[in-house]
Amino acid sequence: MPQQPIQWKHKVQYYETDQMGIVHHSNYIRWFEESRVAFLEAIGFGYKELEERGIISPVLSVSCTYKQMTRFGESVYIIPHVSGFNGVRLSVSYMVVGAEDGVLRAEGETCHCFLDEQGRPLRLKKMHPDYYEALMKCLDEDKTVLK
Amino acid sequence: MPQQPIQWKHKVQYYETDQMGIVHHSNYIRWFEESRVAFLEAIGFGYKELEERGIISPVLSVSCTYKQMTRFGESVYIIPHVSGFNGVRLSVSYMVVGAEDGVLRAEGETCHCFLDEQGRPLRLKKMHPDYYEALMKCLDEDKTVLK
Amino acid sequence: MPQQPIQWKHKVQYYETDQMGIVHHSNYIRWFEESRVAFLEAIGFGYKELEERGIISPVLSVSCTYKQMTRFGESVYIIPHVSGFNGVRLSVSYMVVGAEDGVLRAEGETCHCFLDEQGRPLRLKKMHPDYYEALMKCLDEDKTVLK
Amino acid sequence: MPQQPIQWKHKVQYYETDQMGIVHHSNYIRWFEESRVAFLEAIGFGYKELEERGIISPVLSVSCTYKQMTRFGESVYIIPHVSGFNGVRLSVSYMVVGAEDGVLRAEGETCHCFLDEQGRPLRLKKMHPDYYEALMKCLDEDKTVLK
Repeated sequence: MPQQPIQWKHKVQYYETDQMGIVHHSNYIRWFEESRVAFLEAIGFGYKELEERGIISPVLSVSCTYKQMTRFGESVYIIPHVSGFNGVRLSVSYMVVGAEDGVLRAEGETCHCFLDEQGRPLRLKKMHPDYYEALMKCLDEDKTVLK
Repeated sequence: MPQQPIQWKHKVQYYETDQMGIVHHSNYIRWFEESRVAFLEAIGFGYKELEERGIISPVLSVSCTYKQMTRFGESVYIIPHVSGFNGVRLSVSYMVVGAEDGVLRAEGETCHCFLDEQGRPLRLKKMHPDYYEALMKCLDEDKTVLK
Repeated sequence: MPQQPIQWKHKVQYYETDQMGIVHHSNYIRWFEESRVAFLEAIGFGYKELEERGIISPVLSVSCTYKQMTRFGESVYIIPHVSGFNGVRLSVSYMVVGAEDGVLRAEGETCHCFLDEQGRPLRLKKMHPDYYEALMKCLDEDKTVLK
Repeated sequence: MPQQPIQWKHKVQYYETDQMGIVHHSNYIRWFEESRVAFLEAIGFGYKELEERGIISPVLSVSCTYKQMTRFGESVYIIPHVSGFNGVRLSVSYMVVGAEDGVLRAEGETCHCFLDEQGRPLRLKKMHPDYYEALMKCLDEDKTVLK
């Protein structure tokens, strides 16, 4: 785990519930995005920066496993980690944890590539070495922890 | 009412419900849009056509009055009408009616202007007379009915 | 304005944008709800409290006027005010203001009634005098300001 | 593939787009649900029926791989299949295909369990043999095709 893991706090909203009385499962995918945006800002590569460089990062895949229900009235932390990165593809994993009880609600992962504004694959190492290094550093920090 | 009023059918989806066990009120605003899109297509000025002409129609205001709750398992018709048009502004009113019971669930209105791609106001009568005429015809038809 | 007006801060999320490159208009209705929930918590009548008392407050109507577009990368304050209250009906008005530039993005209003769990109208003054007083106090504070 | 595969048609809505000009990835998860609901109705076990029997089927996991972007102005077919079922767990896989071009846009899977209204696991084979048989039949039909 990096020294300063990002914890994105999200207060569950009423409009996120469904008639089962819990947060609808599709919202966790949106929460992943919220935390990913905050994470990239935290390492200095927020949306504005990437937009100015013309870097687009579409979502290639998403997965989520639901462990415990989340309800209106609760807040959760979404904790993103770089789980894979090779300069061409980026994987980010997420843990969703109850802010009060610390109980794991869900975990998941998204996978991304890097395109320029014409939709062509970008080699980060060559074109944006500072962004490459920043992501690689996050990956290494994660790896160290996992040992 | 025009000879061929548009009735946009929408099947209530589970993700549209909230923990009160009814459709969350914000979704009606989205249903209005669904029916507006279908209405504009029906009169020959669907999104593709407007996009090619460089016509953008932002929403200036929206209102909705909720009459009866709508639940998962139901379908509704959203019936849009041109309630105002002067070449510069367009008002569309909506009725949301239960598909099975015919009961009014909600009514509302949206107001729109017309901009070109640079964000400048468009005079439809001069620049796009056919679109102007099509909307004016809808307005007239509505007026006739209201007498 | 009350001595301590509630300002609910909302960070615009990517999933709230549409292909016009701005926040989709339906999301402002959801932001109103976010701020209303925070406001009721702030005056001591959050969702948990109301639920335990069996008080349900459906939305009777909603309106919103859009003044300026809001974009991803921005944050907004949503400032709710009690604009009407008579013990049977509650109106809450909202201002959406850019967190950085202070520019008004939208204003709107929602209207609510009070029901018990069987869906029968509740007379707050008689049944929940403390909640009645709390809302009436907010209304009076607003009135004072408006003079 | 079963003799009568369900094809749920979804017209892409403007509010489903994001500022990349494509459908936001979270909406595919909602489309999966739309098609799953339609599929269960088609085999005689729609929401009303399951609700009357007190059968709840939470989502345990979801995954989606995005192949091609989907845009406003398009319609898609979502084609659900029973990809796994053992009486205790149900897996449904989905293909999202462009309605006009037939191009695969995404594929994914959701996994579900069966609970009674007290949240206890339900043995479908014993408690609801007709539902068990209906799902098993779908699984077998899929298997046959895959040979």
